[in-house]
Amino acid sequence: MLLRHIKLTLAYDGTDFLGWQIQPAGPTIQGALATAIGRVTGENVLPQGSGRTDAGVHALGQVASFTTSSPIPVANLAGALNDVLPRAIRTIEVSEAPAEFHPRKSARAKIYRYRILRSDICSPFLARYVWHYPYPLNEQAMSIAAGQVVGEHDFTSFAAVDPERSQPGDSHSNVRTIFSSQWSRQGDELVYQLRGNGFLHHMVRNLVGTFILVGKETLQPEHIGRILEARERSAAGATAPARGLYLVNVEY
Amino acid sequence: MLLRHIKLTLAYDGTDFLGWQIQPAGPTIQGALATAIGRVTGENVLPQGSGRTDAGVHALGQVASFTTSSPIPVANLAGALNDVLPRAIRTIEVSEAPAEFHPRKSARAKIYRYRILRSDICSPFLARYVWHYPYPLNEQAMSIAAGQVVGEHDFTSFAAVDPERSQPGDSHSNVRTIFSSQWSRQGDELVYQLRGNGFLHHMVRNLVGTFILVGKETLQPEHIGRILEARERSAAGATAPARGLYLVNVEY
Repeated sequence: MLLRHIKLTLAYDGTDFLGWQIQPAGPTIQGALATAIGRVTGENVLPQGSGRTDAGVHALGQVASFTTSSPIPVANLAGALNDVLPRAIRTIEVSEAPAEFHPRKSARAKIYRYRILRSDICSPFLARYVWHYPYPLNEQAMSIAAGQVVGEHDFTSFAAVDPERSQPGDSHSNVRTIFSSQWSRQGDELVYQLRGNGFLHHMVRNLVGTFILVGKETLQPEHIGRILEARERSAAGATAPARGLYLVNVEY
Repeated sequence: MLLRHIKLTLAYDGTDFLGWQIQPAGPTIQGALATAIGRVTGENVLPQGSGRTDAGVHALGQVASFTTSSPIPVANLAGALNDVLPRAIRTIEVSEAPAEFHPRKSARAKIYRYRILRSDICSPFLARYVWHYPYPLNEQAMSIAAGQVVGEHDFTSFAAVDPERSQPGDSHSNVRTIFSSQWSRQGDELVYQLRGNGFLHHMVRNLVGTFILVGKETLQPEHIGRILEARERSAAGATAPARGLYLVNVEY
């Protein structure tokens, strides 16, 4: 029986899920995907992802993989999975991958995006997809601050303090390289996008929460360097809400 | 004590509500609004609406009213209500109205919109807000069919068969006047909009379900006249899903 290794690209609205990782307490992306693959292939598999997303976090291009002996053609698999997945999860691309491909271990870079809505009232049709922050912000100072994290740094100050969450194969180092980090204005939205070789738990949301302190002029942009050097979670700002965060793309 | 009559304009994402009308079985727009008004004014009121919307139906401009002896200035009321309403419901406008104003009885016209997504895959971020229909449709025939309902007609064929739902003050006639009715293309979406002096239960969704039969060329556009004349629900098409429907505006 020929075993095939399948790579999936997924988009999802994370609002009504407890995050990526399967758990008995409620609906998860990984669990819904495992159920859908089971219905399509008749096989009981646990798909692997490029990394966990937390409850309420969205994806435009999460990558997952699984191994199957099903003969279903790759061209039919997206449609078959989408027929049985909840509408909040869509398979947007399917391909065959080499046996050694692993969505997390093979990843070379990831892009995340964070959306902040600046208008007075947040439309109910955006409420699940942005952080509504209508108060004054020094957006230029936030732009300068964002640039301070580009390069190789120890991001301990921006990592959630939950050592149990480290995954097998993790180097247990908190050093990561950020290739780009910038804020841009898109109509009523202030959008943060960053690309890096890896991300710690809550890292993007903790960066955003800290940039907000810069926007409020509680911190100066130059303080970001000192916060990095402190290597202490309490040196940085609060964790921004999950609903503004998107895993945009994983590069291999 | 001065009694004031307050007019509210509301937008809501109806997905997670059992519709406008308050009921013990679960969350409703009217119920959430009554709770919010209670928290802001300290008064127990049941706000009136321009009409019921069904479970899953959205609003861009539903109108409601209530009477209060609270001295809170109109200018502060939207913010105060939005602070306590669920994020899926927003107060977008507040004004004082004459005592004789009634959101339903005073209404002269309403505009509804129905969104159909035509792309192969429906983004999870649109799934709650459109009907995804990726199959072939003769859009020109649908446009002609939409024009056939303009004018004064008996819409019994397009009304849900649920006489219990008729409201006090209803004329019990199913004759309504449609001022405009048209389909337009907006990117990947096919959007139906109509304006009329009143609407029967399920009327817009039953019209859309019937226009889809024209789009599939199961019916010819000219058949719409015969369906109206039949005055029988079974003569028309199926009810389109609630999630594509929006109450856009109420005119007074």
